[in-house]
Amino acid sequence: MSDRAAAFRALHRPGRPLLLPNAWDHASAAALAARGHPAIGTTSLGVAAAAGQPDGTGATWPDTLDLARRLRDLPVLLTVDVEGGFGAGPAAVAGRVAELAAYGVVGINLEDGRPDGTLAPVTLVAETVAAVRAAVPGLFVNARTDAWWLGVADPLDEAVRRAHAYREAGADGFFVPGAPDDLLPRLVSEAARPVNVLYRPGGPALTALGRLGVARVSTGSLLFRAALGAALHLADAVAAGRDPDLPVAPAYGWVQGLVVPKEVPQG
Amino acid sequence: MSDRAAAFRALHRPGRPLLLPNAWDHASAAALAARGHPAIGTTSLGVAAAAGQPDGTGATWPDTLDLARRLRDLPVLLTVDVEGGFGAGPAAVAGRVAELAAYGVVGINLEDGRPDGTLAPVTLVAETVAAVRAAVPGLFVNARTDAWWLGVADPLDEAVRRAHAYREAGADGFFVPGAPDDLLPRLVSEAARPVNVLYRPGGPALTALGRLGVARVSTGSLLFRAALGAALHLADAVAAGRDPDLPVAPAYGWVQGLVVPKEVPQG
Repeated sequence: MSDRAAAFRALHRPGRPLLLPNAWDHASAAALAARGHPAIGTTSLGVAAAAGQPDGTGATWPDTLDLARRLRDLPVLLTVDVEGGFGAGPAAVAGRVAELAAYGVVGINLEDGRPDGTLAPVTLVAETVAAVRAAVPGLFVNARTDAWWLGVADPLDEAVRRAHAYREAGADGFFVPGAPDDLLPRLVSEAARPVNVLYRPGGPALTALGRLGVARVSTGSLLFRAALGAALHLADAVAAGRDPDLPVAPAYGWVQGLVVPKEVPQG
Repeated sequence: MSDRAAAFRALHRPGRPLLLPNAWDHASAAALAARGHPAIGTTSLGVAAAAGQPDGTGATWPDTLDLARRLRDLPVLLTVDVEGGFGAGPAAVAGRVAELAAYGVVGINLEDGRPDGTLAPVTLVAETVAAVRAAVPGLFVNARTDAWWLGVADPLDEAVRRAHAYREAGADGFFVPGAPDDLLPRLVSEAARPVNVLYRPGGPALTALGRLGVARVSTGSLLFRAALGAALHLADAVAAGRDPDLPVAPAYGWVQGLVVPKEVPQG
C-alpha cells in the first residue's frame, strides 16, 4: 500500500469522523486543499453538471478521468466518486479504477444504485468490489448502498445484507446516504468497517455523528449546489440593484495562486 | 448576420445596460440561462481555474473551445472571453474565433493586455479586430483595453487612442475594466460604440451605470469567485459545526434538470 493510501485510511476514525468535502473541478479541489483539508472527494453530480452530462448514468467517465488527471499534482488525498463503476462488469470497472489510481487516486466510492432506479444485484456489486481490490491493492473502496435513496421495501434489512456482502468482498468502508440517524449505531456495528454518511444541513453536526460511530462525513453535492446557488443569488442581486450579502469572494490573485505552474505560457 | 447575432447586438442599449453574467462551466451557464438571462459571457479566470490553468496566458484554448461546444445547445446567447486571442497574429486569432462561431457563439471579448503586463501594440490589436470581423461577419467584437488594470502612465489618453483605433478596425464594443466611473461619459463619447464596464460590488448599480451612458455591465470573474467562496464558507461551517447561513442551494433535481438530454445513457 502506498504511503498516501495508508494516510487516507488512517483518517477514518470511528467516533471522530473525517470531514470529506467534495470537489468538482480544479478550482474547488485546490481551494479546499488550500483551506487545509487533508483529503477530498469528488461529487458525481458536480462533475456531471459542470460537463453538461446527466449524473449517475455512467456518462461522465471521460470527465471523471480528466479531473483526476488535472488534480494529480495537488497536495491532497483524493477519492473519486465512480458512480456504478463506469464499466460493464467487474473486470471493466477494475480497469477503469486502475486508470484513476495511476493518477494517484487513493480511494473510490462505488454505488449500487442503477440509473433505472433499482439496486444492482448484491453478488455483482460484491464481485466488482473484489475485482477492484485485486486490481488496485491498497485503494480505499467505499461501497455505497442506495437502499434508502431508492426507497426499497425494507432498506435496513437490505443495507445490512449488503454491508456483510461488501465487507466479505473486501470493501474498506460502507456509505449509507439517506439512512436515518437512529439506525447509524446498528449500521456501524453490522458493517464492522468505517461508516460514511452524508452531511445534511440542519442535521447532526460532526461531533454528534461521531457519537453515533460514524468515521467519515461527506458533503456530496452540497458544496457544488451551494456554489451554484451563490452565483445565482449574486447575479439576481446585481440585476435588481440589491446588496448581495454573500460571504467574501476570494480575490483574483488568490484564485490564480491555486494553479500550480506547469509550463511556460505561450502568450 | 444571423438572427442570434442581431439579437445579441440589440441588447446593447446605452443608458439601459445589458447585465451580462459570466459563466465558467455548463452548470453555471445553464443555471444563468434558466434564471432568464438572455445572454451570458464566459470568464477566462473561471474557465482557467476550473481547468487548473493560469488565466490570461493563452493556455486555455482547448478548455475555451470545449466549453463553447458543451454550451452550444443552451437557449442563451453566448459571448466568449478569448483573452488575447489564443493565436500568434491576426490570422491565427481569426481562425480560432471562427471555430468558436461554428458552435453558435455570437460575440467575443478580445483584450489588449499581455501576460508580461504590457499592452499589445495598438496597430496589432486593430489588425486582429479587423481580421476577426472579416472572418466572422456579424460577430460582436468587444475590444477590451487593460490600460487601467495594467497601470499605464496615462490610461485615459491611451484608452481614447485605442477606442478610436479599435472602432476604425470594426470593433462593435469597447470594454474598459477598471476605468473610474467619472470618466465613463467621456469614454462613451469617444468610443462612439456600446461601452462595457465591469460590475463592482459596492460601486454604482446598473441604473446608475446606465445614466453614465454604459451599454453593457459584465460580472467578470465575480460570480465564479463568489461561488468558490460560498463552497469554502460552507465547508468551514460544517467543519466547525456552525450554521452556514448561505443562500439556498438549488436542489439535486433542479441541477440535473439543467442538462439537456442528448443520448441514451449506457448504464
